[in-house]
Amino acid sequence: MALTSRGRVVEENSDVMLYLDEKRKYMVKARRGSKLHTHRGYVDMDSVVGASYGSRVKSNVGVDFVVLQPTLWDYVLKVARRTQVIYPKDMALMVFRLGLTSGMRVVEAGTGSGALTCALAYFVKPGVVYSYEINPKFQEVARRNIERAGLMDYVVLKLKDITQGIDEEDVDAVVLDMAAPWLVVEHAYQALKGGGFFASFSPTINQVEKTVLALRRRGFVDVRVYELLLREIKVEEGAVRPFTLMIGHTGYVTFARKSL
Amino acid sequence: MALTSRGRVVEENSDVMLYLDEKRKYMVKARRGSKLHTHRGYVDMDSVVGASYGSRVKSNVGVDFVVLQPTLWDYVLKVARRTQVIYPKDMALMVFRLGLTSGMRVVEAGTGSGALTCALAYFVKPGVVYSYEINPKFQEVARRNIERAGLMDYVVLKLKDITQGIDEEDVDAVVLDMAAPWLVVEHAYQALKGGGFFASFSPTINQVEKTVLALRRRGFVDVRVYELLLREIKVEEGAVRPFTLMIGHTGYVTFARKSL
Amino acid sequence: MALTSRGRVVEENSDVMLYLDEKRKYMVKARRGSKLHTHRGYVDMDSVVGASYGSRVKSNVGVDFVVLQPTLWDYVLKVARRTQVIYPKDMALMVFRLGLTSGMRVVEAGTGSGALTCALAYFVKPGVVYSYEINPKFQEVARRNIERAGLMDYVVLKLKDITQGIDEEDVDAVVLDMAAPWLVVEHAYQALKGGGFFASFSPTINQVEKTVLALRRRGFVDVRVYELLLREIKVEEGAVRPFTLMIGHTGYVTFARKSL
Amino acid sequence: MALTSRGRVVEENSDVMLYLDEKRKYMVKARRGSKLHTHRGYVDMDSVVGASYGSRVKSNVGVDFVVLQPTLWDYVLKVARRTQVIYPKDMALMVFRLGLTSGMRVVEAGTGSGALTCALAYFVKPGVVYSYEINPKFQEVARRNIERAGLMDYVVLKLKDITQGIDEEDVDAVVLDMAAPWLVVEHAYQALKGGGFFASFSPTINQVEKTVLALRRRGFVDVRVYELLLREIKVEEGAVRPFTLMIGHTGYVTFARKSL
Repeated sequence: MALTSRGRVVEENSDVMLYLDEKRKYMVKARRGSKLHTHRGYVDMDSVVGASYGSRVKSNVGVDFVVLQPTLWDYVLKVARRTQVIYPKDMALMVFRLGLTSGMRVVEAGTGSGALTCALAYFVKPGVVYSYEINPKFQEVARRNIERAGLMDYVVLKLKDITQGIDEEDVDAVVLDMAAPWLVVEHAYQALKGGGFFASFSPTINQVEKTVLALRRRGFVDVRVYELLLREIKVEEGAVRPFTLMIGHTGYVTFARKSL
Repeated sequence: MALTSRGRVVEENSDVMLYLDEKRKYMVKARRGSKLHTHRGYVDMDSVVGASYGSRVKSNVGVDFVVLQPTLWDYVLKVARRTQVIYPKDMALMVFRLGLTSGMRVVEAGTGSGALTCALAYFVKPGVVYSYEINPKFQEVARRNIERAGLMDYVVLKLKDITQGIDEEDVDAVVLDMAAPWLVVEHAYQALKGGGFFASFSPTINQVEKTVLALRRRGFVDVRVYELLLREIKVEEGAVRPFTLMIGHTGYVTFARKSL
Repeated sequence: MALTSRGRVVEENSDVMLYLDEKRKYMVKARRGSKLHTHRGYVDMDSVVGASYGSRVKSNVGVDFVVLQPTLWDYVLKVARRTQVIYPKDMALMVFRLGLTSGMRVVEAGTGSGALTCALAYFVKPGVVYSYEINPKFQEVARRNIERAGLMDYVVLKLKDITQGIDEEDVDAVVLDMAAPWLVVEHAYQALKGGGFFASFSPTINQVEKTVLALRRRGFVDVRVYELLLREIKVEEGAVRPFTLMIGHTGYVTFARKSL
Repeated sequence: MALTSRGRVVEENSDVMLYLDEKRKYMVKARRGSKLHTHRGYVDMDSVVGASYGSRVKSNVGVDFVVLQPTLWDYVLKVARRTQVIYPKDMALMVFRLGLTSGMRVVEAGTGSGALTCALAYFVKPGVVYSYEINPKFQEVARRNIERAGLMDYVVLKLKDITQGIDEEDVDAVVLDMAAPWLVVEHAYQALKGGGFFASFSPTINQVEKTVLALRRRGFVDVRVYELLLREIKVEEGAVRPFTLMIGHTGYVTFARKSL
């Protein structure tokens, strides 16, 4: 599928990103016989199937759209937007701080919409993400999102309450995006290999405080809490400035490592 | 070597991180017969070789140090500190936005101390990073840093001026951390595959303006400029607050994609 | 009028702020016989005239509104919202850095909607603000806003192009919120007393660069450029966090002092 | 004294700011017969007494220093630096939000070094600031600082514990910079006039939470919490960027108004 394919042209039924301008791009399935309707005319998907990535196709009114392969970032934004919690910037920090790489085994909770699951799976493939969720409806939504991203081979979806325990052992990392991460500190400790990483995303400072105190009590070390602010810069010739509106807060990211 | 090993115990001559407290950790080579001297006594490295990751060793005055495997973040911080330019937060954003994954081919310039090279190689291995540098002394320093991180198998160091052209073709991304990135826009266009990514890190807004205008003129699309602010939060029970001092600016990260 | 009155009760025809909740407050004229219509019913202004500040009045459906005296901040926000440029946080920094106090004489341009004019006049009264504007329509809007705030006695509105010169001499400060502040640097130098302050608000970094270079060339000293980010914190018991959306950028504030 | 004088030349024994460059300026007393020693030679204060503000004097090695009148900002920074808590940006927000103006009566606690006291007195003069402090040593330090700024006529220093009650009634504002502001909420309510302002500066989010909950319980309205980040921009021709290091956190400012 899209995220794992390395082809040069758009395969039928793969996802494709049709880029119009800096404000509008559309992620759609490249299905023969279908159309993408926009305010700048419609794009016949027959012209997209088989097109080279980077090339341009025209809408019926002659407006250019650039054919791009969707990226992890695109998938994550599309999926995450529905729940508005963790953002790509925060996932990026987690992936980099944890040094996620091929073959790692990671536990995650809750699955939610599957946005973070996709990101974790993308970097550990052909490793595995064990993703816990208690709400079967969320799990089904996540399954579709992960399948669409072509990453289901690297994910084990579990319908279980992670605050009751973690089945896996000796994992490289436990990554949480849930309301009460402090309830998972002891289970994470049991599941992690020596030196393994605990990581948690929380919107409120109260969650952070409870989690950090629980981590210290349990003997985790290198406990750090970060907040990232992402500004986008608007560049016009002779008139460069940050955009007026910005996402001023998503949440705090807490990291810690297991000490035996 | 350290970054690519998945062992459970410290092998002789590998790098190890000895963690003392939230303010102090030491990255050292685990050489039998050597010692790490600190203000809390010295650690005999004979006690470290063969120790399990996550376990504790004692200094000669009985103070505990936790034995941790160094991470990509640790290597990057150690290397980057010497030049004080691009930080892990910025590298993380690049890696995630570009969706760097196993097998990709990436062009980088300048090599500098090799910090960014390490990060790129870590995520594309067993792919390859072609890294351009004009200063042979920098290149030698970088070589040692990349070797230490165990990533030299995935890096081709080139002593060439990238503003004169890029030898490679059809690469997934061109990643720049250099004074005049706008001089590389045309070469990057030639070297990239359709839809491939241009990414550039620049400390000043003037560099950003020139680069973005050059990208737009050349027909790159999805041109975006971001700035990340990273705050660290200090958590004491009942007294949670951001730290007083912070790195208020590292630089801006520009992204764009090649349109045919 | 409202801003300069120190009375304890609402006088007829003065402005009053009717506060409903943390998201809604209404600035209205206290006219007998009029009504304020809201989605929580209407408030009969007859019940507001003569009410003590801080007391509550009820709408026709029994919902409480708190009767508050409007503040400078309220006036400035109300006026500035129409043009969306300089914000109270930036005005506050200017007022404090310049140490604006009773009796000072300040030159300002452009008048715009009069929001900044109100702020300057509020702090220098019974001093005077000479405010330059080239657009007569803007000047008329500003006049009404300044009169409403009760500050017209301390303002001289001038329909003149400040880039052609400043009539006043020996003023304490020149305060600019206009597109090309660098064109006023020489005139400001002539108009200022020794050690007097130049201050300028600009949305883009390019304006800042030109202005700072012009200031240094003319021999101004203590040239400083600041940017303020204002975050609002959402406090619920056990769930404290910054608000999700924020104004990420208004502009940069440049300060300098005249050296003879 | 310096802050309230409007003279054109430096009077003997007044404070003067000698400006060397963008990194160095010196606040000193203009005493005949004394010298200011710097790494760029010494300045004979006899050459400073009687000099026009804005003029230049030379050190014994011929380096220029600009003679400036110290501002409120300079006093506040000089005083506040010793305790490193509330910064000018936060005071500016308070002064502007509260609309402090001539003749107002304000209660403050704790006096501390007197930096905030100076700022409040500067804007309410010839009004009065009643400043509570329990530590007699702090009070003495503050008295000297306030006298030096020439503002003691507008301040009443009280050696009393404000958590035991406020003597004044019908005041315009109660302004707090102390460890447990929530203990003053009831007293502030009693002391304030209808619609009057409560304002509090606190470094930790836990203090903010307790204070806001206490304010809401007591019936205060328009409760708002702000955090200001101040970045300074470094302007070189063709190389504009924020400074690398910044004060990432000082504290949160809470505002509320008394509702009867």
